[in-house]
Amino acid sequence: MQFAVIGGDNRQGFLVNLLTAKGYSVNTYGLEKFEHLESSQFSGSLSGAVSGADVIILPLPITRNGVTINAPFAYSDIYLSDVIALFKKNQLILGGKVPEYMFEAAATHDIKLYDYLNREEMSVLNAIPTAEGAIEIAMRETDKTIFGSSCLCIGYGRIGKALSSRLHALGANVTSSARKFSDIAWITSNGMNSVRTDALENELNKFDLIFNTVPHLIMDSKNLDKCKSTAVIIDLASAPGGVDYVYAHTKGLKALAALSLPGKVAPITAAEIMLGAIINMVYEYYD
Amino acid sequence: MQFAVIGGDNRQGFLVNLLTAKGYSVNTYGLEKFEHLESSQFSGSLSGAVSGADVIILPLPITRNGVTINAPFAYSDIYLSDVIALFKKNQLILGGKVPEYMFEAAATHDIKLYDYLNREEMSVLNAIPTAEGAIEIAMRETDKTIFGSSCLCIGYGRIGKALSSRLHALGANVTSSARKFSDIAWITSNGMNSVRTDALENELNKFDLIFNTVPHLIMDSKNLDKCKSTAVIIDLASAPGGVDYVYAHTKGLKALAALSLPGKVAPITAAEIMLGAIINMVYEYYD
Amino acid sequence: MQFAVIGGDNRQGFLVNLLTAKGYSVNTYGLEKFEHLESSQFSGSLSGAVSGADVIILPLPITRNGVTINAPFAYSDIYLSDVIALFKKNQLILGGKVPEYMFEAAATHDIKLYDYLNREEMSVLNAIPTAEGAIEIAMRETDKTIFGSSCLCIGYGRIGKALSSRLHALGANVTSSARKFSDIAWITSNGMNSVRTDALENELNKFDLIFNTVPHLIMDSKNLDKCKSTAVIIDLASAPGGVDYVYAHTKGLKALAALSLPGKVAPITAAEIMLGAIINMVYEYYD
Amino acid sequence: MQFAVIGGDNRQGFLVNLLTAKGYSVNTYGLEKFEHLESSQFSGSLSGAVSGADVIILPLPITRNGVTINAPFAYSDIYLSDVIALFKKNQLILGGKVPEYMFEAAATHDIKLYDYLNREEMSVLNAIPTAEGAIEIAMRETDKTIFGSSCLCIGYGRIGKALSSRLHALGANVTSSARKFSDIAWITSNGMNSVRTDALENELNKFDLIFNTVPHLIMDSKNLDKCKSTAVIIDLASAPGGVDYVYAHTKGLKALAALSLPGKVAPITAAEIMLGAIINMVYEYYD
Repeated sequence: MQFAVIGGDNRQGFLVNLLTAKGYSVNTYGLEKFEHLESSQFSGSLSGAVSGADVIILPLPITRNGVTINAPFAYSDIYLSDVIALFKKNQLILGGKVPEYMFEAAATHDIKLYDYLNREEMSVLNAIPTAEGAIEIAMRETDKTIFGSSCLCIGYGRIGKALSSRLHALGANVTSSARKFSDIAWITSNGMNSVRTDALENELNKFDLIFNTVPHLIMDSKNLDKCKSTAVIIDLASAPGGVDYVYAHTKGLKALAALSLPGKVAPITAAEIMLGAIINMVYEYYD
Repeated sequence: MQFAVIGGDNRQGFLVNLLTAKGYSVNTYGLEKFEHLESSQFSGSLSGAVSGADVIILPLPITRNGVTINAPFAYSDIYLSDVIALFKKNQLILGGKVPEYMFEAAATHDIKLYDYLNREEMSVLNAIPTAEGAIEIAMRETDKTIFGSSCLCIGYGRIGKALSSRLHALGANVTSSARKFSDIAWITSNGMNSVRTDALENELNKFDLIFNTVPHLIMDSKNLDKCKSTAVIIDLASAPGGVDYVYAHTKGLKALAALSLPGKVAPITAAEIMLGAIINMVYEYYD
Repeated sequence: MQFAVIGGDNRQGFLVNLLTAKGYSVNTYGLEKFEHLESSQFSGSLSGAVSGADVIILPLPITRNGVTINAPFAYSDIYLSDVIALFKKNQLILGGKVPEYMFEAAATHDIKLYDYLNREEMSVLNAIPTAEGAIEIAMRETDKTIFGSSCLCIGYGRIGKALSSRLHALGANVTSSARKFSDIAWITSNGMNSVRTDALENELNKFDLIFNTVPHLIMDSKNLDKCKSTAVIIDLASAPGGVDYVYAHTKGLKALAALSLPGKVAPITAAEIMLGAIINMVYEYYD
Repeated sequence: MQFAVIGGDNRQGFLVNLLTAKGYSVNTYGLEKFEHLESSQFSGSLSGAVSGADVIILPLPITRNGVTINAPFAYSDIYLSDVIALFKKNQLILGGKVPEYMFEAAATHDIKLYDYLNREEMSVLNAIPTAEGAIEIAMRETDKTIFGSSCLCIGYGRIGKALSSRLHALGANVTSSARKFSDIAWITSNGMNSVRTDALENELNKFDLIFNTVPHLIMDSKNLDKCKSTAVIIDLASAPGGVDYVYAHTKGLKALAALSLPGKVAPITAAEIMLGAIINMVYEYYD
């Protein structure tokens, strides 16, 4: 099986090495400035990289501007239209955060295009580097240990689960919040204190560390007023996030937005996770 | 708030005490032979117990024969039809494993009847006594410690999650199986080895203890042939279970069906879990 | 290296199989009725078993009466004096709970005799089956799950450490007691509640399960008076134990002595632990 | 009970607040520039601070030059001789890393002087912030998660125990090394892989992260040659440490010395731990 990796950040860069280490043949284009690859790994041209490949891996996100491939390690711009024009019907094209119009264009030309960001297993595993990144931030931004601190994790989805269990394992006194009774039951079963998200306000004054994973404005001015003045708030929810930063700032509360942690704190692990999802997609496709 | 508890096994019996300890007024009927209650807690008649109650709790299952209430601690039979005739529109009726025809009868008479067995939080929490019961059986039936033993948990639903994490915490070398890639990811994230359920056969020879939670015939003759001769198989799946017991027996493999563990190994905990679900149902009803 | 195993209970029996599985040549005598061995593994005579052996393994305890070897699986008595007479200076003799007069006799004849029960690593690892056995008893003797129960572990030695960490991992609310401030610090560091053993009395009314590991009369009548009437007390301390059983009985408190658990609940694991200590002793002797 | 805190770094600064929060009366001198105290908490003079105190707390270390008190937050030098001259026989003097000549001087004048650094419970608890600090460094210095990485912890003393259990809890594949068979047994019992420290060399090529806690040159050139080129070595052993840094540097191996972590990464926790030890010392003194 022949792979091509076109553009991308350090995750796609490390992915090339991981694929190679697994014994696959890999052509790359648009990663020339990534320092962990060797010159022999670079194709001289986009068409050279794409032409013989069975599976073509595009960046996450594929594009930031709708015109060029997201390729911070490339020497020059790579146009989406040029790339798309090279795809053949028998190739499997895998990209991250694929825009709707690309799916439509692919369908029109009978191109097999899939989004690896939609893979549930990738989201589950990415919660691990996100949780570790959040813990690293908490360690750095406080004068106390995680051990013995009172922590609140708002939301019991993938990140909430991965984060709260790790804080608990490090000896924090962890409370997790959720809306559903069944999630409250899981929080209990996993050994943590629980609170229903709509009853948070009565408990907010207990916490040294507050981690938000819910993409709604949970930590609004009313709730921020309930927090300890020494509390540190770490917001892991995607934009627009869950914290009224302006109000937090005026109160002198430390509140930090921490986004896209996997690629930042553990790019090799993020690449390994991406690799796993891609292998699963290839497996399902050819099965 | 006034409760009535009609019939039931030791779980309903302990439930009466838990409700009383929480300060609720409780009438009971059909629990007279349950030794942990006092005579003052018994109503003299069914209608006396039911009439003033806001919430009426029926057994799990409500009935085993479709005619009488499931009431092993009652002095005499309590007929379903007699009980139903007493319900009023303003009462909340909560039973377990309610048959479809009872729901229909209730709807006809505008009676509010709900099944607490359908509560997801109850199933989540009942997985804890089930997991502990399975561990107790495993401890009793083997000549080795859980620590250091190789365990397989087939299925990563509620019981699979609760059981595998406990075995892992006790120092077993745990492999969990699942069908979905996302569950495989959760198994990995939770620190255990994973195997896809359809690829089990290649690994079966590694395990000292095999716990099945999947209600399909996973451990058929072909798979039983792959097990160690000293393996112990504990089947937690509801009928018809997941093990070919006849074949296991002819091979001399130790295979045990373990059903309805919460009420057997930890009836007080089972009553507490039931209480939690009932409180949630009352909360939602009056909210 | 040639081993001989003379007498012993099921631990020595399983030990024969473990040594064989590791590729050692093993002669046995006095285990003839142990059903997990095959006839080819038995020497026809004591002298035949002992004569060619480099390492000779005796039971734990070696003797219960000072006259014969402890050999419940033997067809007839094996006299200590007969065995001792066969030992040669170049043989390594390993026994358990060796009486002082045997050490003296061995020294007189320049026989290398050592006690494997004195091996610290064996005591450390035997705490694991002891802890699991205690948990199995607790599961069997209560109507509640370990999860959520309030447990007291008196003493933070080897068994206290192994047991409390396992109860904690199963979701109990664990308090450990110790006398020394440094042990209190370890209890804290390991995530449990602590209490100084001399201040126990103020907290005793909180516990559902009380495990004693201290070989002094900690649970005397005064302390038993402080316990919940539903508390279950499991005494793991060697004779005379730490519980006033007569007083507990008159109060209707459930108190159980649980001794020599490794050989009872997990004889194969106990044999593996014994094997590890023996291998270490051989390693040190020949090193 | 009246306390005086003389000099010290941020740990002694936070200690003042912790003592105050516990309801004790506290005089301070030599902490004037510590920003978390208020002006009302400062005594105008050294003698004013010392004179009425029952317990006097000196820094850790008391002095760095043998002449002045270690007081980085003081406006001017505080001479050891001046401080000592003020002590009375009925006062309890507690300092950290007290030099031998100070103990001798104290004995001559019948002054009760004790070193809180010698308190075992303080060392045990300080291993927690040390472990967290080491984990924070590891997270920052690698491109992978702790989860899934292969970690070696050299030495199974206080820091080795606290660190390895936390890495294990975070999902690392942890190997701990020790010299004694009994510590190897504890490592096994705690669920980790073990290796004898003198047999390290055969396994060194497996590890992504190597933490040293042994104050001997374990990671010499011969052992560094065995490591992966991408390994990160974090040395927690006190001077002279356990790593040949010069050789590591010439090989391009990342090796970091991380000392005095509690005061750096978690000064409030370090102050709480110090407080605990001081309270214990006062308790023992007055008991």
